[in-house]
Amino acid sequence: MSIKLWQKADAAIDARAEQYTAGDVGLDQRLVKADVLGSIAHARMLQKIGILTADEFAALRAELVDILRLDAAGRFVLTVQDEDVHTRVENHLVAALGDPGKKIHTARSRNDQVALDMRLFIKESLLGVEGGLLDAVDAFLGFARRYEWTPMPGYTHMQRAMLSSVGLWVASFAESLLDDRALLGAVYDIVDQSPLGSAASYGVPLPIDRQYAAELLGFARVHNNVLAAQHGRGKHEGMVVQALGQVMLDLSRFAQDVVLFTTSEYGFFTLDQSLCTGSSIMPQKRNADILELARGQASVVQGLAQQIMATITGLPSGYNADVSLTKRPVMQAFDITLGTLGICALAARSLTPNEAALRAALSPEVFATDAAYDLVAQGVPFRDAYRRVAADLASLAPVDPEPALKERTHQGASGNLGLGQIVTHLESARADLAERTERFQAPLQALVDGAIA
Amino acid sequence: MSIKLWQKADAAIDARAEQYTAGDVGLDQRLVKADVLGSIAHARMLQKIGILTADEFAALRAELVDILRLDAAGRFVLTVQDEDVHTRVENHLVAALGDPGKKIHTARSRNDQVALDMRLFIKESLLGVEGGLLDAVDAFLGFARRYEWTPMPGYTHMQRAMLSSVGLWVASFAESLLDDRALLGAVYDIVDQSPLGSAASYGVPLPIDRQYAAELLGFARVHNNVLAAQHGRGKHEGMVVQALGQVMLDLSRFAQDVVLFTTSEYGFFTLDQSLCTGSSIMPQKRNADILELARGQASVVQGLAQQIMATITGLPSGYNADVSLTKRPVMQAFDITLGTLGICALAARSLTPNEAALRAALSPEVFATDAAYDLVAQGVPFRDAYRRVAADLASLAPVDPEPALKERTHQGASGNLGLGQIVTHLESARADLAERTERFQAPLQALVDGAIA
Amino acid sequence: MSIKLWQKADAAIDARAEQYTAGDVGLDQRLVKADVLGSIAHARMLQKIGILTADEFAALRAELVDILRLDAAGRFVLTVQDEDVHTRVENHLVAALGDPGKKIHTARSRNDQVALDMRLFIKESLLGVEGGLLDAVDAFLGFARRYEWTPMPGYTHMQRAMLSSVGLWVASFAESLLDDRALLGAVYDIVDQSPLGSAASYGVPLPIDRQYAAELLGFARVHNNVLAAQHGRGKHEGMVVQALGQVMLDLSRFAQDVVLFTTSEYGFFTLDQSLCTGSSIMPQKRNADILELARGQASVVQGLAQQIMATITGLPSGYNADVSLTKRPVMQAFDITLGTLGICALAARSLTPNEAALRAALSPEVFATDAAYDLVAQGVPFRDAYRRVAADLASLAPVDPEPALKERTHQGASGNLGLGQIVTHLESARADLAERTERFQAPLQALVDGAIA
Amino acid sequence: MSIKLWQKADAAIDARAEQYTAGDVGLDQRLVKADVLGSIAHARMLQKIGILTADEFAALRAELVDILRLDAAGRFVLTVQDEDVHTRVENHLVAALGDPGKKIHTARSRNDQVALDMRLFIKESLLGVEGGLLDAVDAFLGFARRYEWTPMPGYTHMQRAMLSSVGLWVASFAESLLDDRALLGAVYDIVDQSPLGSAASYGVPLPIDRQYAAELLGFARVHNNVLAAQHGRGKHEGMVVQALGQVMLDLSRFAQDVVLFTTSEYGFFTLDQSLCTGSSIMPQKRNADILELARGQASVVQGLAQQIMATITGLPSGYNADVSLTKRPVMQAFDITLGTLGICALAARSLTPNEAALRAALSPEVFATDAAYDLVAQGVPFRDAYRRVAADLASLAPVDPEPALKERTHQGASGNLGLGQIVTHLESARADLAERTERFQAPLQALVDGAIA
Repeated sequence: MSIKLWQKADAAIDARAEQYTAGDVGLDQRLVKADVLGSIAHARMLQKIGILTADEFAALRAELVDILRLDAAGRFVLTVQDEDVHTRVENHLVAALGDPGKKIHTARSRNDQVALDMRLFIKESLLGVEGGLLDAVDAFLGFARRYEWTPMPGYTHMQRAMLSSVGLWVASFAESLLDDRALLGAVYDIVDQSPLGSAASYGVPLPIDRQYAAELLGFARVHNNVLAAQHGRGKHEGMVVQALGQVMLDLSRFAQDVVLFTTSEYGFFTLDQSLCTGSSIMPQKRNADILELARGQASVVQGLAQQIMATITGLPSGYNADVSLTKRPVMQAFDITLGTLGICALAARSLTPNEAALRAALSPEVFATDAAYDLVAQGVPFRDAYRRVAADLASLAPVDPEPALKERTHQGASGNLGLGQIVTHLESARADLAERTERFQAPLQALVDGAIA
Repeated sequence: MSIKLWQKADAAIDARAEQYTAGDVGLDQRLVKADVLGSIAHARMLQKIGILTADEFAALRAELVDILRLDAAGRFVLTVQDEDVHTRVENHLVAALGDPGKKIHTARSRNDQVALDMRLFIKESLLGVEGGLLDAVDAFLGFARRYEWTPMPGYTHMQRAMLSSVGLWVASFAESLLDDRALLGAVYDIVDQSPLGSAASYGVPLPIDRQYAAELLGFARVHNNVLAAQHGRGKHEGMVVQALGQVMLDLSRFAQDVVLFTTSEYGFFTLDQSLCTGSSIMPQKRNADILELARGQASVVQGLAQQIMATITGLPSGYNADVSLTKRPVMQAFDITLGTLGICALAARSLTPNEAALRAALSPEVFATDAAYDLVAQGVPFRDAYRRVAADLASLAPVDPEPALKERTHQGASGNLGLGQIVTHLESARADLAERTERFQAPLQALVDGAIA
Repeated sequence: MSIKLWQKADAAIDARAEQYTAGDVGLDQRLVKADVLGSIAHARMLQKIGILTADEFAALRAELVDILRLDAAGRFVLTVQDEDVHTRVENHLVAALGDPGKKIHTARSRNDQVALDMRLFIKESLLGVEGGLLDAVDAFLGFARRYEWTPMPGYTHMQRAMLSSVGLWVASFAESLLDDRALLGAVYDIVDQSPLGSAASYGVPLPIDRQYAAELLGFARVHNNVLAAQHGRGKHEGMVVQALGQVMLDLSRFAQDVVLFTTSEYGFFTLDQSLCTGSSIMPQKRNADILELARGQASVVQGLAQQIMATITGLPSGYNADVSLTKRPVMQAFDITLGTLGICALAARSLTPNEAALRAALSPEVFATDAAYDLVAQGVPFRDAYRRVAADLASLAPVDPEPALKERTHQGASGNLGLGQIVTHLESARADLAERTERFQAPLQALVDGAIA
Repeated sequence: MSIKLWQKADAAIDARAEQYTAGDVGLDQRLVKADVLGSIAHARMLQKIGILTADEFAALRAELVDILRLDAAGRFVLTVQDEDVHTRVENHLVAALGDPGKKIHTARSRNDQVALDMRLFIKESLLGVEGGLLDAVDAFLGFARRYEWTPMPGYTHMQRAMLSSVGLWVASFAESLLDDRALLGAVYDIVDQSPLGSAASYGVPLPIDRQYAAELLGFARVHNNVLAAQHGRGKHEGMVVQALGQVMLDLSRFAQDVVLFTTSEYGFFTLDQSLCTGSSIMPQKRNADILELARGQASVVQGLAQQIMATITGLPSGYNADVSLTKRPVMQAFDITLGTLGICALAARSLTPNEAALRAALSPEVFATDAAYDLVAQGVPFRDAYRRVAADLASLAPVDPEPALKERTHQGASGNLGLGQIVTHLESARADLAERTERFQAPLQALVDGAIA
């Protein structure tokens, strides 16, 4: 049985309270890697300021790297009795090494450990989501290029409105996602501050070198005010999940469109059969289940953002245990968003337009505005032209959509989608992501390898 | 490898889509019992209308009861490939029994199965929560009785306001929870309609006997309109979690009070040490972690309610896969609420008032309103009396709180708490719960035992 | 300029703070009637216990009734300087009557006044919503009866699934709304407790008669524990708006269906042109704007419920000013829900089915399950029958839908909708509403008329 | 009576539908300025491409500038019959000018007008909030500098934890707000794309110059894909309100702290009496109402963000009327946030520490960790030192807090707050804001002045 770090000789915690406070150890399991890396960096910093000897640090680093190995092999499994990952790691180090294990917690608290672990987890996950996002952009872009000139009706109020194109429709998702990427990037930068050294929320009366620890861990900077650093917990999680909720918003729109456009009534697209599910009772069914779920998961992620914000709002300063409840929703939100990006990219690569159905839907009234503009070209003021067309809709003639598409030449219209700009944007985003991923990983790898300056 | 019920010979589902749609099989695992019981009832109904023979039914029932046994022993474990609990059960029956297994899905769909499973799950869980709630009421009531006449300051705006008592404070939670019980009961009654026979959402062209199946399963009535029955999915979950959110609201208030009143600054109560946690860095800490978590979990549950509502709002009629996303939050909300009721009852039984601190906090200004009423008794209009007292607060004399408590004799005030009414209410609620629990369990037990009318 | 009730001679409130705390006086304006009625009842109770003379009460009642008259004429308009409705009314009474005005606040606080005002407002509004709900049920029911036997496809996953009918579709909304009515009724009963006498949250040291005041105001009972009574504030608002959110959920489904079913692609129904809006640019547009808004307003109301719950969760016991922020969302939610019920009833009465389009959509695959059941009738186990049909969907023949509708004879299916039950349910609900409305209004009218026991 | 732009000769809209769709014209009233400026820019662009003559443009510009004048004087008041600001402006222009008025809607839709109006509104409001935020940072910074060396206890779990300082506490808000500013800036950049030319969602078949119109209006760039531009509606509102919710989160923490620290029990600070409100019943009350409201308003703003996201999630592509429901919450959120920033700045400037109370609260156990570190300095491993101190808490001696504060020398601790960095950050933020404000205003002023390139 495990001993809590704070446990006094004469006191046992009530089992129901232990269970209630332990929460889901599966969440902490996902933080083992970050906790170990943070511990190596912290120990190295303690060595630098003379609290650990070089030998003690070496022993600790070796044992911590061993935990990584055990964890990767599924042999470092947390239990409710462990309380949390930090306790488990310290107990492991004490059991293995004795005094050096008892020293590693000098000048830190589990509060700054978990703040650190979550930031590393969030940074890594944001990079992963960004990768998934760029892949989805790539899928939408490819789709848009394949069908850049395929006409389709554009809808407003879910009513046929004006001429559009498959390219215009699909490229809209690529562009919206790239806007989301800017938001994710801004959030990444806000999160990219090292909380190490904030301790329980008020720092420590020891001359620790926060800047050095931050550099070892690859942070852009130290989160200066120790109390503000602690308050980042929950706040960052909220920001992150809100940003993920924006990604999900775009994907939910795509999902809703596909569900709609693959109905018998629209029939605009066919989703590859390998992505459809069936019914246990109706032999004929081919359901776009994955896209219904993608649609619904957007609300889940947004609900998680709200949950996080509600949980932490109104708390007084300093660490409060409520913030620990933000672990689960942030992890769940990352899992869902990454999965949904993949599913939507898959769907975007597996959709085939039914050009006949698309063309059939381009009934004459879709071109009513064009007819008004024809009158405008003859000098009729627009509002009069509009009224004249409206009064005689029945006389609208069918229009050949391809040339009409090409007549929409202004920036961002179907005849001038600017897909080349998206390509350029995507390429630079990929380069940037690769560079940031390297900046994230290299110092952490150095901690594992012991290649520390 | 498992075969989907709807799988065609020539089609394999993409592994990523399978993973994405399978979700968390751990959720379905919790529905095995309900699914099996529903299947027994459905099979019995099929026998009644001549679709199954008595032998076929007997074989199915025996095999289904065996699944209960396997599940209880942890030997009926769902996997991602199983798709869901319904598929797994049908596949199991077909493997064990052949044709009878292939017949059991006659006149039903997984849609009405899961609707049924969730309603049984919700009913059972509501009864469990109601039990936990009554136990918490009992704990608050006991606390109120022990300290009915212990004076404490009452706060408004978090400022000392007027004389109150420990009894008044604690009894308020008992009463609020009993109000919540009324809400839970109303929701229970709405959920207590059998969806069986709604099939995929549109019923079936077979003369099934929905009333009979409903009775076998102990439902109060059939959910009549088959489409409305399907729309109950998600809607019920939302109602339920909103009602749980009301319970959590009360508990969060108690939790916040205890966190506050056990600070050094208030020092009004001491929480038993077995319920406190410590700090890894600060040797002196005794934290009421459990109550901080209780406070925060209220926001989690309320966020889950919002998540459910947002997920299902705006969906068109008929089953949509989005509703399957409501399984997780409803289960999570039940777990949290039940756990938090237990924790708060535990805390209520483990709190000791520090009477000296309570008395010390009853500074003279707490009785300023009483002083104004003294002037009122002398014929001064209240507003003038108020102004006179306000102008000379410094002259307020200390007041002996015990007699003052007893002077508050009107209904519901500290001198007339009506705890006897709460006792009576609690007793009748317990009797009612026992009766409803019996009404829930007896028919289900009869299905297991084969003691079916 | 108005004087605050609590204002001291030497202190002026900062104008920015005054503005910030005053909030929106338009909200309080809606409470004038309730505040006046509550004041009459309170004053009568004060007379009963000897704090006011009969003459003082008579003068106060007359002046209070005069405020009702002024308010109805738009001549009792609150301003930011008034702080709130309670202050304005008291200042008005003092100005008009002198000492009796200064006495009316004896044994009460603005806290219990506003709690009372909100409960009266909520009770009245709930009765109004219930009326709107029953009218919507009536509209859906009428629609269902007109087209009980009109076939339409039923959808799951937004894909054609099985045979349904206009009657089945529309009756589902009537039934769901009647379930909501049960929830609204339960909430009404919880709210129907008089908070008067709870004062600032801790009662008063005066022998007030809470039961008498409650009866004068038509409450079912006294909200016993004075602190619990105060905690009802916000909590009730949350419950109410959650219940309204359930009503909106049903309406959003109807709205989404109509938006969908009136597209060119479905073309199942035509919405009367007087309910459609147009486009400023596209001459041909006929938009079901009102139903898009109805759909979206469901999320607004649900968001308001969440807002209320988040605002009050985590607050400590006793009045806290945060709860005053729940006034706006509860009023907004009532306005939206009442308006949307009316709009949906209007739409339900203005929709015309396009029977040809409905029939055309009943393509053979809609009857695939029926085909499987035909094989079942020949002794083929269902799962085999299902697979056989699935393997040869192309051979499915068209089916005449009318007889097929009538073959669905089990309870709640298209051939056995049970509309008669809904009629009965609606009639009894109307009688009940009339009875409860009388029970609400009669005592309040008596207060105005001075016909007090 | 006003005529709708789309109204046909033979059709009247039902009054109930008109009322329901019109919503709150007060919201549109706030968009008059933006709508007029957008119309000037659009007209100028139409002149550039030859659709309007120079004279027509001049007449339109003059009339539009006149609307600005009328609006400023409160003489351009929208009514329900106006439908919206766009219709009212066009009708006004047609009435005043005839044909030029009928031409101005060429190549645009109310959809891109409102998208434009909202972006201008959001940009201007974001700049305003940023100003309020920097002023609040200034107030917190000033507070931190005044009391940089005033010791106070630091709390975790609301229990006394370690030594902190007023400076550390208050500076934390300044730093968190500066993080929020980064988020607001990122959102501003995403919003800073001109939607003009997206028309109903699909562009127009006219060679409009979107880049030119964007420049006239001071946008950083064109929102390229016309459909993505439309989808920005609601999405931007959601992002903005989420970011405002982060600001409110910080303020709610400050508010909660002040409410707590000004109780009798803490007594750490006194809030200037001009910012306190009283009670109508309790003569002694001094309530920090403004800060309770600030605390609660955080939940309101966050609820509005969730409301917006829920309203728009799941909508299909193209304009849908649901997005119009996002106007109200975004305006409300801006009003609240701006007001709350002002209130918190006011409070930060009006709080006085009670140094004796702060010092009295620094009981010996606050220094328990320091005692453990003393043992660490003597070579005891931290965990052993911790246990030794924990075992003998009673022997902890009082500590002089001032020198202890100064011993916390690492970055961000109480002895090394880095206030100078905040000063620098604030100065550069102010310069940046001034520059961006100029970039926002100058082109709009040029439109009014007619000084257009």
